[in-house]
Amino acid sequence: MKKLVNEPADLVAQALRGLAAAHPDLRVDHDHRIVVRADAPVPGKVALVSGGGSGHEPLHAGFVGPGMLDAACLGEIFTSPVPDQVVEATRAVDGGAGVLHIVKNYTGDVLNFEMAAELVAAETGTDVVAVVTDDDVAVRDSTWTAGRRGVGVTVLLEKIVGAAAEQGRPLAAVADLARRVNASGRSMGMALTSCTVPAVGRPTFDLPDGEMEIGIGIHGEPGRRRVPLATAHEIAEMLVEPILADLDFTGSPAILFVNGMGATPLLELYLMYDEVAGLLGKAGVPVARSLVGPYITSLDMAGCSVTVLRADDELLGLWDAPVRTPNLRWGA
Amino acid sequence: MKKLVNEPADLVAQALRGLAAAHPDLRVDHDHRIVVRADAPVPGKVALVSGGGSGHEPLHAGFVGPGMLDAACLGEIFTSPVPDQVVEATRAVDGGAGVLHIVKNYTGDVLNFEMAAELVAAETGTDVVAVVTDDDVAVRDSTWTAGRRGVGVTVLLEKIVGAAAEQGRPLAAVADLARRVNASGRSMGMALTSCTVPAVGRPTFDLPDGEMEIGIGIHGEPGRRRVPLATAHEIAEMLVEPILADLDFTGSPAILFVNGMGATPLLELYLMYDEVAGLLGKAGVPVARSLVGPYITSLDMAGCSVTVLRADDELLGLWDAPVRTPNLRWGA
Repeated sequence: MKKLVNEPADLVAQALRGLAAAHPDLRVDHDHRIVVRADAPVPGKVALVSGGGSGHEPLHAGFVGPGMLDAACLGEIFTSPVPDQVVEATRAVDGGAGVLHIVKNYTGDVLNFEMAAELVAAETGTDVVAVVTDDDVAVRDSTWTAGRRGVGVTVLLEKIVGAAAEQGRPLAAVADLARRVNASGRSMGMALTSCTVPAVGRPTFDLPDGEMEIGIGIHGEPGRRRVPLATAHEIAEMLVEPILADLDFTGSPAILFVNGMGATPLLELYLMYDEVAGLLGKAGVPVARSLVGPYITSLDMAGCSVTVLRADDELLGLWDAPVRTPNLRWGA
Repeated sequence: MKKLVNEPADLVAQALRGLAAAHPDLRVDHDHRIVVRADAPVPGKVALVSGGGSGHEPLHAGFVGPGMLDAACLGEIFTSPVPDQVVEATRAVDGGAGVLHIVKNYTGDVLNFEMAAELVAAETGTDVVAVVTDDDVAVRDSTWTAGRRGVGVTVLLEKIVGAAAEQGRPLAAVADLARRVNASGRSMGMALTSCTVPAVGRPTFDLPDGEMEIGIGIHGEPGRRRVPLATAHEIAEMLVEPILADLDFTGSPAILFVNGMGATPLLELYLMYDEVAGLLGKAGVPVARSLVGPYITSLDMAGCSVTVLRADDELLGLWDAPVRTPNLRWGA
């Protein structure tokens, strides 16, 4: 294993110290491993809390700040945060207008966020609504998931819904919007190589030189099938076809997100963008906005995922609204 | 070789098509492989042109836009752009106030930018001044370099000097500032793994499982020494000590840039940031601003580099000024 680490068990804690030092405009609670926007709680604003296992950076801590998340809870690598973390985060950002939990659909995450929501509601009466993302069309159930996995749409949702909360919309409207964004997005990923969890020290799965995994999960969970290496054009078809088969994207402007899994260079991602945008064009899906880069990763996995979000003027306006976080920032 | 490509020889051209499609606010000349900010030429503004071999993305095309570069020229992978590309880029952005060429110190780049500057001056009388970056303390001369290599400071320089040009400063002042930024920054990098050039199909160099290369160049050029794998703490010492030995950074605010070489996860970079910031703190170097992420890469190399820039209030103000490019964007 070749990694920049000291003790693998300390990686998340020390990376969080680095994040805190590099971004003094965020508040970091190292005991609870939560990252909070500096001005939280914002009175009268619905607060957004997300979180999940580490290893997917910049998701979620890199998206904390005005216009996006109010707080993120960091679990160990590929491990759900515990309810206590979510309780602390929810308390820290509650500005009196309620709190939205954004939860990727993995069984541990869903249970722990639910438990936290119940604890907070019982203690403080805070209104908490959870929205679960489940945009991955690759598989119906998976290693750690009943139902579809939550992947790339989570990034787009955090941005769009974060902008809506910043406008002062009430909790019910913010939650409705979040459900609508989730329902409007679909994703599919692939891996050229496995990731290696530092505490394990060897690749999570074995992927021979001439093969790739189509439909991979962001923790290395099995996808749809293992096939021989193919060209970028063929790979784009394998990712786009199941997305378009699952939801009608024609006739509305789309947000296209080509994501790197961690070890894939930007040059290859832009090449994939060209392929994917070409396929969407042929299918009558007009791309109105784009995001290209490693935003929901799987440690050092090589590969990519594609997320397509069916949008409208409202969603595009919220996407364009100012945001100020370590890893998505514009207009502010 | 596991990469998202079609024909390896077409990678740069197709990635450029993807970049153009994803960023309609940039102008792309596919014949000359240059990327130009949409509103160029900006009358009365000094224009900044950079470029170099591809494979270091987002450098340089990802830094084109208001507040940073006016144009970038893309060579083939790890290959200098030809003079004709630089001539076209210089013409395209010349707003009558002169053009600054920002050139990383590699022999081919320096020669081709020089030739282009002479051609443009002879044809159109445009004032062109070149500033060469040479911040890498690792080695005195290298495979493709007489004198020190230009690396991470190039990113910081393009941002800071881009802001100064945006303010309307004249060419001589902009060039002086660029020289001052280069003289104030030092870098050192390391590799855990080699990169693989797609057209070659095998790793550029052999780096056994238990070893790493300290002082690596961004094309995989040899560094100072090959040593057994070490902890992140030890690696940080190996990178920071030569930087601090080469320039006095005490007593001034510094900009600290921890850069990923391409395949290293953000989690590891933040851990390295914690180590490096700790060492700078002990050495009496106060860090005032930070940049963490893969900004000057070497394809799919795993590893990192550290750049420290001795700043002052003027440089920090220019760093903070609005910028709107695909990969550095804030306040605009």
